[in-house]
Amino acid sequence: MKKIALLGASGSIGSQTLDLVRSNPEKYQIETLAFKGSNFNLIKNIISEFNPKAVYIKDFKVKEELILFFPKIEFLENLKDCVLFNEISHVVVAVTGNFGLEPTIKALENNKTVVLANKETIISGGCLIKDILKRTKGKIISADSEPIAIQQCLKNENLEKIRNVYLTASGGPFWNKNIDFEKVKLEEVLCHPTWSMGKKITIDCATLMNKGFEVIEIEQLFDINYEQIKVLIHPQSAIHSMVEFIDGNILSQIAVNDMRIVLQYALNGTERKENLSNKFFDFSLINKFEFFEVDKKRFRCLDLAYDAGKKGQSYTAVLVSADELAVKAFIDGRISFIKIPEIIETLLEKHSPFNIRDIEDIKNIEKWVKKEFVIKP
Amino acid sequence: MKKIALLGASGSIGSQTLDLVRSNPEKYQIETLAFKGSNFNLIKNIISEFNPKAVYIKDFKVKEELILFFPKIEFLENLKDCVLFNEISHVVVAVTGNFGLEPTIKALENNKTVVLANKETIISGGCLIKDILKRTKGKIISADSEPIAIQQCLKNENLEKIRNVYLTASGGPFWNKNIDFEKVKLEEVLCHPTWSMGKKITIDCATLMNKGFEVIEIEQLFDINYEQIKVLIHPQSAIHSMVEFIDGNILSQIAVNDMRIVLQYALNGTERKENLSNKFFDFSLINKFEFFEVDKKRFRCLDLAYDAGKKGQSYTAVLVSADELAVKAFIDGRISFIKIPEIIETLLEKHSPFNIRDIEDIKNIEKWVKKEFVIKP
Repeated sequence: MKKIALLGASGSIGSQTLDLVRSNPEKYQIETLAFKGSNFNLIKNIISEFNPKAVYIKDFKVKEELILFFPKIEFLENLKDCVLFNEISHVVVAVTGNFGLEPTIKALENNKTVVLANKETIISGGCLIKDILKRTKGKIISADSEPIAIQQCLKNENLEKIRNVYLTASGGPFWNKNIDFEKVKLEEVLCHPTWSMGKKITIDCATLMNKGFEVIEIEQLFDINYEQIKVLIHPQSAIHSMVEFIDGNILSQIAVNDMRIVLQYALNGTERKENLSNKFFDFSLINKFEFFEVDKKRFRCLDLAYDAGKKGQSYTAVLVSADELAVKAFIDGRISFIKIPEIIETLLEKHSPFNIRDIEDIKNIEKWVKKEFVIKP
Repeated sequence: MKKIALLGASGSIGSQTLDLVRSNPEKYQIETLAFKGSNFNLIKNIISEFNPKAVYIKDFKVKEELILFFPKIEFLENLKDCVLFNEISHVVVAVTGNFGLEPTIKALENNKTVVLANKETIISGGCLIKDILKRTKGKIISADSEPIAIQQCLKNENLEKIRNVYLTASGGPFWNKNIDFEKVKLEEVLCHPTWSMGKKITIDCATLMNKGFEVIEIEQLFDINYEQIKVLIHPQSAIHSMVEFIDGNILSQIAVNDMRIVLQYALNGTERKENLSNKFFDFSLINKFEFFEVDKKRFRCLDLAYDAGKKGQSYTAVLVSADELAVKAFIDGRISFIKIPEIIETLLEKHSPFNIRDIEDIKNIEKWVKKEFVIKP
């Protein structure tokens, strides 16, 4: 029985994790839940159904109201407190942006297994996390389709025998469209061709920053050089990634685009169990896989990520924070789509790099990015 | 250092094995060679270059002449004698049809590793081979792109977690052509779209019997039920096969169509070494993978193979011998292309099944097939 802390329970990954728990109550049990949102009824229903020991609710008003409904449940003061219960074996980190960093570190320090559905955490705090992994029994598994694909292709393979990793990208809605990035509208950006996800990540897919983040994530998780990580546009999103070995053989992983398959593999510690979603890939439905080069001049975020990754960790922390703010500004209608990479690039250029020693350093980078974040007309 | 007996040294697989040995003399050494053909100069050149301890030459005249050229080399009486030298670690069985059976069995009984580039051997003699594998240290690895693909996808996976195996087929030259199988010419059949191979196997690809053979081979090698083995037409031959697991994940193997990559993986005991052919898959050259259902009514050989496999080993031995004769008759211009499955089906229907106990039983099946092989007008 896996005893789970779920951080970000009302989001897209959160609800799919709950789906898994719901359909397998004898395998998974929810111990604690954390909610960042403010949808009172949704949160109330989830708590009622899964009856956790404790919850963290970010929205003060929602929390005050819910305390009245659930007198027996402990209401926690901090997000990180959600992971500290002894019984918890697995922490699913499904909060967005840098919110995942502190609970991830706390969980690993307390020898929990972190199922990380938040790549920003490893991009900003990779060096801190690697250090903790060396001295604790904590484990980290990325619940993202690409690293899970690579993990499956690398099962019991010798990492020294890797020639290249092919990260596939759907390409988002614009990879093959000749439209003006100055004029593109939010609703067009949010129209992802193959995956249904949250707003932030869907926009990151359209700019290809999401793929850039994954490049850094793969480098951090598997110790693969940036030169060996190639990105391929694969509009069908059938192959989720590939590993090419020095002997000329490539292994690739294919699955339907259902995060529950990814989450299940991550939660089961890579042991294969019956597919709870009961969705299997159908070659008669998707009978054509295509592959294209990325137009790096048009989708500048990808190279920004490669460059930040090669320069080092304080640059990647800037990248994460700058993208967070730029995407928010685009959602709020304050900047155009084309400004996202421009703003990020300016901030990366202004940044004076240093070695990250603790979470405070990353928080300071966040503060610096907020201070320096300027929208030029 | 792998010390190799190469049976079928002047054929397509044979010459590619020699290519590998040639480019890595510190890894591989030829101990013995067997030749089925009668190309005097080719055989003489190969013996000169690789300087084996002993050779077997089927053609009596060629043998007599070569004895004069190579007084220090032992000329063997029987094909199976090629595998019995103590020094030999690996036996590459690249002779066609049932010729591979006896040396394979002798090699396994003498604890050698057999690299089998002759699927007929395992289809006719699978039960005999399985029995030997249980009581000796002999090993068998199929040097065929599909089983090698499956082997890579299954590396350290639990066989009980397999849901399906997807065997891919190029489909040969006719899978999507509406041509009259009564009138198709030999040269059209020999025009394989993706692989360059011998005549027999190229014709087997056009009828899809080759894929039927592989279905039986996979069942024998990996103990996978026929119901779990699916054939997909994949005209680009980029994915060489796939394994779907119960959790909804599919692993697939991709490589350029170069048998040396397959042979190298097989010879190295699945350990990955530098690609000697130095050919790597290029997604900008093959940027579209397609998948189609097999038209089983038009390509009847596939179902003949499934049926023979399900019925058991004496049926599959009939299948191999009947196909051998039918294809030969087609090459000789004695029957039309459409007659190949018809003749095989008639022989399978006539066959009275029994349990195979030894090679004699298989030889008797061959004789019976020869006797019963009738070309109706």
